[in-house]
Amino acid sequence: MRSEFRADLARVNTVLVDMVDEVRAAMRRATRSLLEADAVMAEGVITGDAAVNEFHRELEERIFGLLAQQAPVASDLRQLMSALHVASDFERMGDLAKHVAKVGLRRQPAVAVPDDLVPIVRDMADVADRIAGKISQVVDNPDAATAAELDADDDAMDHLRRTLFAVVLDPAWSHGVESAVDGALLSRFYERFADHAVNAGRRMYFQVTGEQLEF
Amino acid sequence: MRSEFRADLARVNTVLVDMVDEVRAAMRRATRSLLEADAVMAEGVITGDAAVNEFHRELEERIFGLLAQQAPVASDLRQLMSALHVASDFERMGDLAKHVAKVGLRRQPAVAVPDDLVPIVRDMADVADRIAGKISQVVDNPDAATAAELDADDDAMDHLRRTLFAVVLDPAWSHGVESAVDGALLSRFYERFADHAVNAGRRMYFQVTGEQLEF
Repeated sequence: MRSEFRADLARVNTVLVDMVDEVRAAMRRATRSLLEADAVMAEGVITGDAAVNEFHRELEERIFGLLAQQAPVASDLRQLMSALHVASDFERMGDLAKHVAKVGLRRQPAVAVPDDLVPIVRDMADVADRIAGKISQVVDNPDAATAAELDADDDAMDHLRRTLFAVVLDPAWSHGVESAVDGALLSRFYERFADHAVNAGRRMYFQVTGEQLEF
Repeated sequence: MRSEFRADLARVNTVLVDMVDEVRAAMRRATRSLLEADAVMAEGVITGDAAVNEFHRELEERIFGLLAQQAPVASDLRQLMSALHVASDFERMGDLAKHVAKVGLRRQPAVAVPDDLVPIVRDMADVADRIAGKISQVVDNPDAATAAELDADDDAMDHLRRTLFAVVLDPAWSHGVESAVDGALLSRFYERFADHAVNAGRRMYFQVTGEQLEF
């Protein structure tokens, strides 16, 4: 019975990895749909989010079942509680991919991101993607080196947000209020996506090592 | 022992009520600091958020302890799992109050919200406050009537967001890009604050009645 429980715990982790891989792919598609003004792809991201929510619901039920039937204590209980939090973070990341897709869709058939912002938005998307990729690794196999890199990635995202705001608030900005507002919202969506990923990574790391990552 | 456990469960709910009351008060202060350009009050909201995070941490530890020692099942277990989610929602609501305060602080000593937007921002703040007040009630004593009202409140917030966007994106907008961006971010913060509150209310309602609120 005990080894079956271990297998159940491992299975929870596998679902978490699948879930973060899914939201990572969703954010990639969202960015592409945004920068290419691809309405079909954007719609796909929006409807696809239901699958992420379903992952979340299933995972919660699975964890509920394990808590009820196995009454785990100590580190097993911590692992399940962490998994609940991490799954919530991933669910929110899926929502944020959806928000990015919606910004693009609202401006159809025009491209929502003016040329001046494309490199910054692309960089934000890249950082978000890199962080999500690391979280997938950390959930699969928490290691200190990967977890510690999140600090630098987080700083990179912060820097990009400042750069974007500096561009849209510059008196030379020539793309109007709507593009500035869209840019500000997009930067917030990428940043929040990364924040949730970093939170998840921090929690997984703590749960496995007992050490708090401070940054 | 059983009645002690009941008291522990009731205590979890009491802490949740304290927590939502605290973030509600924080959002009120944040709005006031924003509209009155009151830097001292804004700073108070920002530093005060640590107390909300501490509430959250304590509550998680308390729930962890109850799961480990009491191995609850069925509705008791559901209640504790709901409490974990609801506490996360409240913790995020505290962050959002902090974000509102920061928008005001960034534009010091000027008032970040131009006159044209003040009534809308005030209305958004009022709806957010009303929803938070109802959540406090629903956590304390879930009833269908209050929970059902959340639907209308949610619609009101959605309507206000649209109004705000229509104003800042109107060609007649004369307050520049920065105020438009601030307005868009503020509307997002109030809306997310309300979303988290509604999520929490929906979860509490479901947990008590077994009925899903669909809206």
